[in-house]
Amino acid sequence: MRREVYLVTQNKGKLQEIKNIFAPFSISVKSIYEICDIGKVEEKGESYAENALLKAKAGFAKTGEISLGEDSGLEVDYLHGAPGLYSARFGGENASSEDKISLLLQLLQGVPREKRTARFVCVVALVWSGGEEIFTGVCEGYLAEEPRGDGGFGYDPIFIFPGEDKTFAQLGSEFKNRYSHRSRAFCQCAEFLVREVFH
Amino acid sequence: MRREVYLVTQNKGKLQEIKNIFAPFSISVKSIYEICDIGKVEEKGESYAENALLKAKAGFAKTGEISLGEDSGLEVDYLHGAPGLYSARFGGENASSEDKISLLLQLLQGVPREKRTARFVCVVALVWSGGEEIFTGVCEGYLAEEPRGDGGFGYDPIFIFPGEDKTFAQLGSEFKNRYSHRSRAFCQCAEFLVREVFH
Repeated sequence: MRREVYLVTQNKGKLQEIKNIFAPFSISVKSIYEICDIGKVEEKGESYAENALLKAKAGFAKTGEISLGEDSGLEVDYLHGAPGLYSARFGGENASSEDKISLLLQLLQGVPREKRTARFVCVVALVWSGGEEIFTGVCEGYLAEEPRGDGGFGYDPIFIFPGEDKTFAQLGSEFKNRYSHRSRAFCQCAEFLVREVFH
Repeated sequence: MRREVYLVTQNKGKLQEIKNIFAPFSISVKSIYEICDIGKVEEKGESYAENALLKAKAGFAKTGEISLGEDSGLEVDYLHGAPGLYSARFGGENASSEDKISLLLQLLQGVPREKRTARFVCVVALVWSGGEEIFTGVCEGYLAEEPRGDGGFGYDPIFIFPGEDKTFAQLGSEFKNRYSHRSRAFCQCAEFLVREVFH
């Protein structure tokens, strides 16, 4: 069986990350937008899983291919879990990553290390002819006082991985692909695909 | 003595509000920008009072006229007092009032009434040939679930005045000029001017 899956995303940073995570499993990943234009799938669900499923279902419905949808967020304890589900839209639809980061840092200005705890959460939905599955990955850390490093994307420059005391943007993609929330969710997904789907 | 003061602001909504508050005291208010261009005074202070003083001092230094500077903010308890000092810049320099409001509502989504408490704070600095004074006004309330009313400006459409259960934007300018944080600070200032300066 062709070991190929389609990710429902228009985010190139995410696509590349997941290509790299799936490579050791000999699974190739393409953006669904390479084979058809399913338009923008609105993230109108009330949970990461709902949003991820909305995307994967839209992809599968349109193509019949093994489809993956992903939703993720950064949950800041000091902000009661915000931006969470709204991480991508935080600060407005047109806010850049820099805008989002400076807004978050502003809200946490003067807040000491022990209250800056946060976690990245990633949920992957897999939809294929055999059914649907959900995989969740979490990565605990805390927020930097200012952006550091130029790898990664999104909130990576302010998310500190505690064991290393460096941000994801400083630690680089190889590290991130091993320990990140996204890696944890997609590795579970890859193992499931190998075990249950590609046989 | 000529009962005239100069407000260091480029915000027309604020200017009009303060003209109305000062009218019963027979004090006329003009924007300092009507008589000279002092440029934009950066709000780089670490308190409302510091920002208000920066403005009033800049106005007095340039014109020798009785100068008023004002700084105000909305302090949301659930957000540990944010946006507070950053209320005007919340969501980025170019964010509109609508942007700021939707960002705040997003951060408070699903938060029940009893945890939506907030206060408007206004600090006025008066600088004249006789010295300088600071006046503070506070108005307690809580945040609406969605914007209501079309009066006022800034955060008025989501700030509910508890006794009335209506937003400042619904209650209108006459009500606001009697009970708002700004009214409280500027009325103290007007009384001081009448008592100590215009005699």
